[in-house]
Amino acid sequence: MASHNEFVDFALHLAELAAARILPYFRTALEISNKAAAGAFDPVTIADREAEAALRSEIRRVYPDHGLLGEEHGYERGSSPYTWVIDPIDGTRSFMLGQLHWGTLIALNDGSRPIVGLMHQPYTGETFVGDAASARLHRAGTVTELATSKTARLSDVVLCATDPDMFATEQHRQAFERVAARARARRYGGDCYTPCLIAAGCAHLVVEAGLKPWDVQALIPIVEGAGGVVTDWAGQPAGEASEVVIAANRELHEEVIRALAWRA
Amino acid sequence: MASHNEFVDFALHLAELAAARILPYFRTALEISNKAAAGAFDPVTIADREAEAALRSEIRRVYPDHGLLGEEHGYERGSSPYTWVIDPIDGTRSFMLGQLHWGTLIALNDGSRPIVGLMHQPYTGETFVGDAASARLHRAGTVTELATSKTARLSDVVLCATDPDMFATEQHRQAFERVAARARARRYGGDCYTPCLIAAGCAHLVVEAGLKPWDVQALIPIVEGAGGVVTDWAGQPAGEASEVVIAANRELHEEVIRALAWRA
Repeated sequence: MASHNEFVDFALHLAELAAARILPYFRTALEISNKAAAGAFDPVTIADREAEAALRSEIRRVYPDHGLLGEEHGYERGSSPYTWVIDPIDGTRSFMLGQLHWGTLIALNDGSRPIVGLMHQPYTGETFVGDAASARLHRAGTVTELATSKTARLSDVVLCATDPDMFATEQHRQAFERVAARARARRYGGDCYTPCLIAAGCAHLVVEAGLKPWDVQALIPIVEGAGGVVTDWAGQPAGEASEVVIAANRELHEEVIRALAWRA
Repeated sequence: MASHNEFVDFALHLAELAAARILPYFRTALEISNKAAAGAFDPVTIADREAEAALRSEIRRVYPDHGLLGEEHGYERGSSPYTWVIDPIDGTRSFMLGQLHWGTLIALNDGSRPIVGLMHQPYTGETFVGDAASARLHRAGTVTELATSKTARLSDVVLCATDPDMFATEQHRQAFERVAARARARRYGGDCYTPCLIAAGCAHLVVEAGLKPWDVQALIPIVEGAGGVVTDWAGQPAGEASEVVIAANRELHEEVIRALAWRA
């Protein structure tokens, strides 16, 4: 039987494979602006698809009994309970603009929850990886153990979210505003990057909506491995949730859940 | 008489000085969370002040007749028309969260306009530098000439801004919304980083408010050197402006100015 450690190593290997497909398409504006067919060329979509195809083929080769779930090519059930849940480029808008808050998300779900999670930002060379019991940042040959902040009061922390437009209904907006009103400040534009900074003890709180399993599952073992809490807005498991709270610690998380006062 | 080239080299030297003061304070959460006095320790303020003091002292040493303008220590008039306009950490909230969209801004103003501009992100090792006639990205020993996008229609581009809360009055919010309504999408969370991505041809449009000269002046020679346009919301010079438009090209800029319909 494979150990978590083996799966972590394989996830790190997958991240390298994805990076090789993605980086050549990052900040290609200068080259493509000189091509006649520039209008038809969508680098982020091509990079996303090519990377997902490469990951799928490698997962099938090494773990033919595992399932697979990804944004571009859908769900393939495996004969074992394990499923890899992948998003080669989370934060496509950030990627398109040449910004830095995007990354490759890779999770392994054991049939009930994600047990390995990884976020890789190939341009900055950062890999955040967790197994729900611990979490680490790999960069430039050094590995740092991660631990979330103990700052426990909502009034002391910055509320982060990717985009105000992600809140689809008036109910969503009002719930988010109830949290924002009690937070020290708010900050947009984080995608998958800010939850990893919660794991690193720098950021404290992300409240998002409109998410898919491949946006969330990789982040759970990273944040929880560093001491944080990830649930849906009602405090239930977040793996299949659309509305997600990611908090640095249990006390802060409880205050946020009370402020959201959310019933699905 | 000193050439632009000499000033560009000196600005690059200042950026390295600032980085040495700033980087030790970036993502220090893990260390400071173990200290008793953690609550009183504000890494970004300390880094900002120490870096500005280092830059001031070096500018005084090399160009004793030049003036100086910075956020932390105010204005010192020089005996020559030249003034250095500096902000060691633009994007302090991004810095505090451990995010990447912040940087050191350094401009040299000749008495009527900024003639050299530099943005340095020490964590990613990127330096964007311009002299209003050309602009370049230095990274990892390579230098890339920058050119803005020719995409000219507002409906094709993403409108970027640092924060929706930067628009202080209802007038500001309505003007911004008139632009947003015609843009393809909007994106928050850029600070000084996104204007440099306009220079690099990746991003297209930034509309901001509540800015100070040290937030803007360094960006003007970078963006204009790459072919872009920087003005206030009424289409006038932006060096002293609070409301600023940064666009990839003249046609896009004109459409944005029409949409803003701003009278100061």
